[in-house]
Amino acid sequence: MATIGTDRSVLTLVNVFTVAPENQQKLVDLLVAATERTMRHLPGFISATVHRGLDGGKVVNYAQWRSREDFAALMNHPEAVAHMKAAAVLASFDPILCEVVESVGAG
Amino acid sequence: MATIGTDRSVLTLVNVFTVAPENQQKLVDLLVAATERTMRHLPGFISATVHRGLDGGKVVNYAQWRSREDFAALMNHPEAVAHMKAAAVLASFDPILCEVVESVGAG
Repeated sequence: MATIGTDRSVLTLVNVFTVAPENQQKLVDLLVAATERTMRHLPGFISATVHRGLDGGKVVNYAQWRSREDFAALMNHPEAVAHMKAAAVLASFDPILCEVVESVGAG
Repeated sequence: MATIGTDRSVLTLVNVFTVAPENQQKLVDLLVAATERTMRHLPGFISATVHRGLDGGKVVNYAQWRSREDFAALMNHPEAVAHMKAAAVLASFDPILCEVVESVGAG
């Protein structure tokens, strides 16, 4: 489980993948496996949540890192880069680095 | 604060706004105000978190709703529609309806 809030400084990566529907499940499996095997063990990793788009053509990864430096180090990690290259074969993607401004609950 | 997990069925809306950097803060303010004034009081609303893209040209809203029906009702709510129209003047957007497949923490 992941928590989103404004109480701590977190670098958020929202990565939207556009994928052919017949490859959606394969991409989901690849992202979950990459997170379990590699990303979660890297310094500064907080969480990653993989979402399946209901229309079949999108996958969204919502990831939290401690800092921009930790995220930058990921880009030089051979195993992580290999996972990203495998994902790039299946889908195009548009990663957005961001920070939480406000989180509002019901009521 | 919001929590993300696979322990309950939640409809997730990831809405990526593309905006001119000079309008980014205005869009953030509009989305936060719309959530506070209207969305959070509607049936089925769970949470919404507004993110500022660090490059200045994106804003991401990560919202959770109880069901697809609750989300569909939003589209017919006059106040909610007025907020969406105001956002559309400032930015283009690409809403993705999705479900959580897996959420992984560090370790």
